[in-house]
Amino acid sequence: MQLKLKTDYGLRVLLYLARQAQGAADWRAVDPVSSETVAQAFAISKEHIVKVVQALARHGWVTTRAGRGGGLQLAADPDTIDVGDVVTALEGRDGVLDCVAEPGVCVLEPGCRLRRLLIEAESAFYDTLTGTSVGALASVRGRRGGLLNLDLN
Amino acid sequence: MQLKLKTDYGLRVLLYLARQAQGAADWRAVDPVSSETVAQAFAISKEHIVKVVQALARHGWVTTRAGRGGGLQLAADPDTIDVGDVVTALEGRDGVLDCVAEPGVCVLEPGCRLRRLLIEAESAFYDTLTGTSVGALASVRGRRGGLLNLDLN
Repeated sequence: MQLKLKTDYGLRVLLYLARQAQGAADWRAVDPVSSETVAQAFAISKEHIVKVVQALARHGWVTTRAGRGGGLQLAADPDTIDVGDVVTALEGRDGVLDCVAEPGVCVLEPGCRLRRLLIEAESAFYDTLTGTSVGALASVRGRRGGLLNLDLN
Repeated sequence: MQLKLKTDYGLRVLLYLARQAQGAADWRAVDPVSSETVAQAFAISKEHIVKVVQALARHGWVTTRAGRGGGLQLAADPDTIDVGDVVTALEGRDGVLDCVAEPGVCVLEPGCRLRRLLIEAESAFYDTLTGTSVGALASVRGRRGGLLNLDLN
């Protein structure tokens, strides 16, 4: 059972921006970062980052500005971005097996209870993610509560 | 988030055999069925069925007999085959993202809490499946408790 690469990259971008914001007084005060910089940090192609950023922007989590001094920024407080929402949005709810997404594909279906059980299990997965924010996940605090300075670039 | 085709096919084979067993006095009393018959019922290639049957046999859930009158049979009471065990065995626990399976692949890792949250979510998924048997899933009972006669072939 694996999540899509798109979800992987989307979470990384948000966590990257959230961690940057931790070093600032306010998440709005962080300078834009280029997709290239983010791509290099994760050793992922820039095209993948650009594509997932478009999806994140559509959901109101990031914003992009073209031109000099432009780049990628958070468009929402990372403490309010729910990880369950992010994974649901990027992953889509296609169903963990074909029979979940497309009833009628399997000869066993009349009476088969697998479909309902899988829907329950998938919900349990998402329920575990819901209620945790991107900000909380990214939070890097040292043993004495001090913020660690990680060089993300 | 999707399960592997192998898991899909493995569940279908077990559910097929379990449903056959419901029509019999005892699951041991069911005649062997050929991989070809099962493959045709699901409109899946026989090669896929043969491959997943090998995996199911390794786990002691089915048995195969070659030759005339041979074929595929349950090797355990379907009411004792746990769906969580089947999905775990066929799916493997690779981790829903690379960082779960291979710590160290991501620059965010020191302090990132995503990995732990994903492991929790995956466990919640499997916990939902655990405790339900293949026999219970396959059970086809009509509104008045009568067993429906489905022609699986």
